[in-house]
Amino acid sequence: MKTDPAAMSLLYDYYGELLTEKQRSCFDLYYNQDFSLAEIAESEGVSRQGVHDSILRAEASLRECEEKLGCAARAAALDQRLSEIADAAGQILARTGDASVRALADGIVRIVDSIKE
Amino acid sequence: MKTDPAAMSLLYDYYGELLTEKQRSCFDLYYNQDFSLAEIAESEGVSRQGVHDSILRAEASLRECEEKLGCAARAAALDQRLSEIADAAGQILARTGDASVRALADGIVRIVDSIKE
Repeated sequence: MKTDPAAMSLLYDYYGELLTEKQRSCFDLYYNQDFSLAEIAESEGVSRQGVHDSILRAEASLRECEEKLGCAARAAALDQRLSEIADAAGQILARTGDASVRALADGIVRIVDSIKE
Repeated sequence: MKTDPAAMSLLYDYYGELLTEKQRSCFDLYYNQDFSLAEIAESEGVSRQGVHDSILRAEASLRECEEKLGCAARAAALDQRLSEIADAAGQILARTGDASVRALADGIVRIVDSIKE
């Protein structure tokens, strides 16, 4: 039943706070903690079908948020551009012995790293 | 009644798609097109009180989205770090005559500009 769990977990990181508490709990146990539907049903005290429905609704809601807000897509595009910046700064470091220029290029690499964290 | 309209319009840019169609329409006319409540009521064919309620609900919903997702705060922090990168690249341009290093630094400035667009 899990389709593209990495993509789903990513959407959960962005939009999980917009889900209901029950959806969040079921989604987290299923996608991030690798519980089975039956295990979640027992842990949450609801039916297996109820867990299944909650997860389906959570998935639909997360996909709808991404369609409307596009945070994950924007973050992926940003990540690509940041890599290009770090790459250019790395090339500057490889081409110059000037200490002040090297310090500036090194600073750029560190800022990119801090943004990506 | 408008409190910090610039901040509200910014939140609308991020999360407006999550509002109902009626909230979006009232909010846009009020905050972005500078209509009065009475003018919106006439244009939308609802009561002035109904317009007022829709805008209050929209404001509350936008603030809640920002509290939960923090897109505007993250974008402001990113903008600050990008400015630091562009500043460092500008200093590299001011300190070196090496054409290949200058081309790389110039490329970094252009990438930052394209991200900020």
